[in-house]
Amino acid sequence: MSKKNKIIVVGAGLCGSLLAVRLAQRGFEVCLYEKLPDMRKTDLGAGRSINLALSNRGLMALDRVGLKEDILDQCIPMLGRIIHPIKGDTFLSRYSGREEDYINSVSRPGLNIELLNLAEANDNISVRFNCKCLGVELETATATFQDKSTGETFSEKGDIVIGTDGAGSAVRRSLMAKTAELLFDFSQSFLRTGYKELSILPDDNDNWRIHKEALHIWPRGHHMVIALPNLDGSFTLTMFHPYEGEAGFNTLNTKAKVTAFFEKYYPDLIPHCPHFADEYFENPTGILGTIKCYPWQAYGKVLIMGDAAHAIVPFYGQGMNAAFEDVRVLDDVMNEHGDDWEKVFTNFQDLRAENANAIADLAIDNFYEMQDRVDDEDFIKKRKIEMKLEIEYPDYFSKYSLVTFRPDLDYKKAMKLGREQDALLLKICTQPEFANITLEEIHQKMIALKQSMLAGAYP
Amino acid sequence: MSKKNKIIVVGAGLCGSLLAVRLAQRGFEVCLYEKLPDMRKTDLGAGRSINLALSNRGLMALDRVGLKEDILDQCIPMLGRIIHPIKGDTFLSRYSGREEDYINSVSRPGLNIELLNLAEANDNISVRFNCKCLGVELETATATFQDKSTGETFSEKGDIVIGTDGAGSAVRRSLMAKTAELLFDFSQSFLRTGYKELSILPDDNDNWRIHKEALHIWPRGHHMVIALPNLDGSFTLTMFHPYEGEAGFNTLNTKAKVTAFFEKYYPDLIPHCPHFADEYFENPTGILGTIKCYPWQAYGKVLIMGDAAHAIVPFYGQGMNAAFEDVRVLDDVMNEHGDDWEKVFTNFQDLRAENANAIADLAIDNFYEMQDRVDDEDFIKKRKIEMKLEIEYPDYFSKYSLVTFRPDLDYKKAMKLGREQDALLLKICTQPEFANITLEEIHQKMIALKQSMLAGAYP
Repeated sequence: MSKKNKIIVVGAGLCGSLLAVRLAQRGFEVCLYEKLPDMRKTDLGAGRSINLALSNRGLMALDRVGLKEDILDQCIPMLGRIIHPIKGDTFLSRYSGREEDYINSVSRPGLNIELLNLAEANDNISVRFNCKCLGVELETATATFQDKSTGETFSEKGDIVIGTDGAGSAVRRSLMAKTAELLFDFSQSFLRTGYKELSILPDDNDNWRIHKEALHIWPRGHHMVIALPNLDGSFTLTMFHPYEGEAGFNTLNTKAKVTAFFEKYYPDLIPHCPHFADEYFENPTGILGTIKCYPWQAYGKVLIMGDAAHAIVPFYGQGMNAAFEDVRVLDDVMNEHGDDWEKVFTNFQDLRAENANAIADLAIDNFYEMQDRVDDEDFIKKRKIEMKLEIEYPDYFSKYSLVTFRPDLDYKKAMKLGREQDALLLKICTQPEFANITLEEIHQKMIALKQSMLAGAYP
Repeated sequence: MSKKNKIIVVGAGLCGSLLAVRLAQRGFEVCLYEKLPDMRKTDLGAGRSINLALSNRGLMALDRVGLKEDILDQCIPMLGRIIHPIKGDTFLSRYSGREEDYINSVSRPGLNIELLNLAEANDNISVRFNCKCLGVELETATATFQDKSTGETFSEKGDIVIGTDGAGSAVRRSLMAKTAELLFDFSQSFLRTGYKELSILPDDNDNWRIHKEALHIWPRGHHMVIALPNLDGSFTLTMFHPYEGEAGFNTLNTKAKVTAFFEKYYPDLIPHCPHFADEYFENPTGILGTIKCYPWQAYGKVLIMGDAAHAIVPFYGQGMNAAFEDVRVLDDVMNEHGDDWEKVFTNFQDLRAENANAIADLAIDNFYEMQDRVDDEDFIKKRKIEMKLEIEYPDYFSKYSLVTFRPDLDYKKAMKLGREQDALLLKICTQPEFANITLEEIHQKMIALKQSMLAGAYP
């Protein structure tokens, strides 16, 4: 490295904190700025994504900074989805046929605090909270902030600026302000469905009221509720409902209507969260959007990563994992190009942008699958075959497993192979000519598919 | 009408001036604001889309305000494309087999001035130039402007505000600032090709140096030049070149390089524009972008139209025509819903948005066709069959004709049918089984296709 570069990281959320730690471990001087107050000293308020699903891509990145085992100790494994149909018994649909493949429910603030603690313990990092980024002068890597506690505005010049400031990124806005120069492609699109968080409290013995080691789903066609377990015995529920229509957040605008709706559609939930109608009106309704853009860098001086570059809907449980994977891939690229930032940034964006687009599209697909198809007969049949394949043949990975448990394979390859596998399985499940096909015959077809699609890229 | 509503129109370009005139003719009070100085008194500078192709959709809208014949008198008909291959003779490819189907080269400022004159002659319209829109308060239909001649900032409240302020629309920015409330979907994407205007001056007798009644194309694979005739005997040339690579605007950065490039790729142009290398460096390089968004309206108070709602690349010659058609369709919707603006706006956007997306996509397709395929053998063969069909069978319209000469058919229907026709013709041109097919047999297939796709929607 030519000299000890100074790097300004804008945003100390999950991605920014991890990035700051890794860059500091590499010997850079890191100035980490965060708009919000220090979450270790202030309650930032409930009602917004309290827990998240951490899986292999995220864990691989946490391993880079030496935090994987610590974090796993604070997670609850979720071995599969427990489906709560409107009629009939609940049933478990495992995420994989392999024992070792599961996802992990983790507290968002808990994880963020671990990362902030690690950052502050590193002499190469200075962290400053309450500083809102107002914009970045791209050519000179100069970021301007307003200190919200004093009102004072100040600028800081780095060798580079990296924006990890989330879906509403101020750094991205500075790229967009140079649309003509950068030919800055940008899109934002929103589901006509929003979300609202509720909760299931622990029982009298501080235990989990429903099965602990699973992600629960109440699929209802055009709306659903999901639940993820927390360490304290509670669950965080998330309602995903359209804005309009019978199930619409705008329609369910009185306690009586909300209660009647739950009695009709989520009756088995009510005993577990008697306070649902209060929480419904206390907690905000969030929007669900996808953001794509390109380029992610300007002049070898400024880069955006994580949600700032590629915000996605939460239905594949990959938002945080994709952001953490950004940090891991940037780290890989720096192994090759050191602090030649122009090369690092352009290589990084060209490696990551099409993968970010892939997971964005997969997450939209899963929105429809989760709310509408997980209790569908053909879908259940297909999942059963996939499960048998995964149990019998360790080399077979379903689309879900490719995306979730195979960080060695990028999102785009996982998507392409996974979609072809799904199409083949759907044919097998629905066409009479395959009525007597054996598992081994299916496996052979899958091997052929894999070889034709990925050739050497896939072991 | 309940009362004489006051309508603020932001932007007095082609779309805004036509809209203001039509609204005033309907009896509304119209306040028309324009950022730039009055083009009738100030030279706004050359180098940017001096002439445009006006065709049936635009003419149908001009007819609404009684201006069609006046404008046609100022147009030069373009009966087809004259292709200038790099080797071999030029040849004409007509736009249609019907005599009456052609497009028209019109001066952008000439047309705009006609519309402004008509606007100012109407007592219901007040026009104010030099006023830059800073934003709109959506709920109250209040627009804020800065008068650039005095620096003064002022607000004007209307019953409604309509933004016709182009691709960089300030009104659209105000919708985007309410992203969460409106679930405002937005995308901007740019070709990695830009444009630059040059010119062919008249000859010594003020006549046209190359064939007058045509759109000329010099297709060269990854770059091209086109020329449209002007009334004064000149042509406006437009180079469409990538930014990078051998033909790149960034690569051609000295007069020597530009000259060598023209000598290699556009040798037959040089005698007609000996000054090309000077103009190349005098004139700006423009970007080519597509903008899509939804919704186009907020609260029945604010609407965007034209490029503000749907900017497209120029390769189908439909940007202005689509904007004018917006005005015609809005006029149709008002025939039904009067000044019930909530209904007018939501009906209008739902009628227009998918058509705007269709012409945006068609324009991108034509970019590749014009620069790369117009001198391709299969393409020429296909065009010849289409031409024969159009000459023999008045009920057959090629994709180009459907889009350009059939304003009774919306863009989306034209696109869908046109693409199917193209796929069929391509099969006929390339597959040996069709070697002996007769024109009447092709015509029968086209009739069947049309009936299966459009049923009653298409005469």
